[in-house]
Amino acid sequence: MESIFDLDTAVTPEGDCRFGATLTDRWDRLGGGPLGGYTLATCLRALAASMPQPEPIVASAFFLRPASHGRAEISTELLRAGRTIATGAARLVQGDREVLRVVASFADPATATGRTLVLNDPPTLPPIEHCVDPLASMILPGVTVADRVEYRFASPPGWQSGAPTGSPSAECWLRFRDDRPADALALAFVVDAVAPAVMEIGAAGSSTLELTVHFRQRPEPGWLRCRLGTRHVINGFHEEDFEVWDAAGQLVAQSRQLAVLPA
Amino acid sequence: MESIFDLDTAVTPEGDCRFGATLTDRWDRLGGGPLGGYTLATCLRALAASMPQPEPIVASAFFLRPASHGRAEISTELLRAGRTIATGAARLVQGDREVLRVVASFADPATATGRTLVLNDPPTLPPIEHCVDPLASMILPGVTVADRVEYRFASPPGWQSGAPTGSPSAECWLRFRDDRPADALALAFVVDAVAPAVMEIGAAGSSTLELTVHFRQRPEPGWLRCRLGTRHVINGFHEEDFEVWDAAGQLVAQSRQLAVLPA
Repeated sequence: MESIFDLDTAVTPEGDCRFGATLTDRWDRLGGGPLGGYTLATCLRALAASMPQPEPIVASAFFLRPASHGRAEISTELLRAGRTIATGAARLVQGDREVLRVVASFADPATATGRTLVLNDPPTLPPIEHCVDPLASMILPGVTVADRVEYRFASPPGWQSGAPTGSPSAECWLRFRDDRPADALALAFVVDAVAPAVMEIGAAGSSTLELTVHFRQRPEPGWLRCRLGTRHVINGFHEEDFEVWDAAGQLVAQSRQLAVLPA
Repeated sequence: MESIFDLDTAVTPEGDCRFGATLTDRWDRLGGGPLGGYTLATCLRALAASMPQPEPIVASAFFLRPASHGRAEISTELLRAGRTIATGAARLVQGDREVLRVVASFADPATATGRTLVLNDPPTLPPIEHCVDPLASMILPGVTVADRVEYRFASPPGWQSGAPTGSPSAECWLRFRDDRPADALALAFVVDAVAPAVMEIGAAGSSTLELTVHFRQRPEPGWLRCRLGTRHVINGFHEEDFEVWDAAGQLVAQSRQLAVLPA
């Protein structure tokens, strides 16, 4: 059975480097409308169908306008097909207005055989059965992402009870509710699927301007561990760094976004 | 008198959204050819001339092919001109081959008046007069960037004497030799102008695939402080994080690149 994520990010070829897609209301973010990571994953699916290499290794997305539910057209452009790395661009358009511009490089992970040295550890979360489900005690009307994704925190986020911790960082377990295994496309969504770390300093939300994702390894099936945090809020602008680690304790994705607090 | 950096990143309008540029041999990197940050700064200059907002706030660059000395054509495209943020794309072409694809958002820093909270400190370097100039004891034939930029380290980099420290991180003071004050364009160059942190784990160099720069504040004149580091080398691919702090102790730029070690 196909997962809802695969159904909802599906693209249909409609000509040379052109695809149709339907953005559903099943991946809505806090504040309404489709989550940026969902629209990015949809663009990466169109690019994957256009590239001579199989898997994304890095993607940069500029969120130009809020996406809407319904029809979207994606056009892709091959910038360079090298021996080991291919790079392309995609634009997602709704009603003649460009919503999202993506540039991404693709490669075959099986051909990457260089050195490995990791000077960082996965999030040290308690076992899942000792963690709390923040959605068990929170109603988020319209945030349909919460119907697709399961979260487990060591303790409930402070902002949830109106008591932000003052520390803009978080760690949690995460998986699709239908237990679809994560792959690169899913990771592009996952890095945008946790409430912004700045909510722990009292922000009501945050709008992403740009998101860069590094796809570091193909994840093992199972729960993912996420670590996110912000260290520099300057004149309302802030970065958010996000790491995703898999069940085997490997870093599988790393992302950074530039976002802006509500005025 | 115009600085060499401004002269060498100059662009000439050659029609609607088209510019000519000349990449000189004065900004060559370790390994030869123009430094990626120099070509990125040149593209940002063309974009700045095309955008209705004055200064870059975020840029993502995909390095498709090595740049060459000589003539380059840059074409720009306005993706969206919003009320406060404008986003555009640029491609730099040499001899009909695309070398660099950039997407960047621009804004007016004077209009950013939101909250500030910085949970990080500038590099704790000794005063400049107590630091060492690594170039005083090192000959880097062809690395002409070293003729343009002055560096000061607390102690000489380990790789320089054939004894890498094993820790892929570094901190240093940095400025243009002609003391040109840094601005956003200069920062796009600076984040790529220090030897890769992975040289401290024995790498002979590293090739950047993608570089994202966040321009966080307009720098005060004077020496800049840089902090760079890599925490995850996986199958030869690695990120490099880079921070630039100004003379007033403010974070002025933050960048991350995805790069690959030599095979």
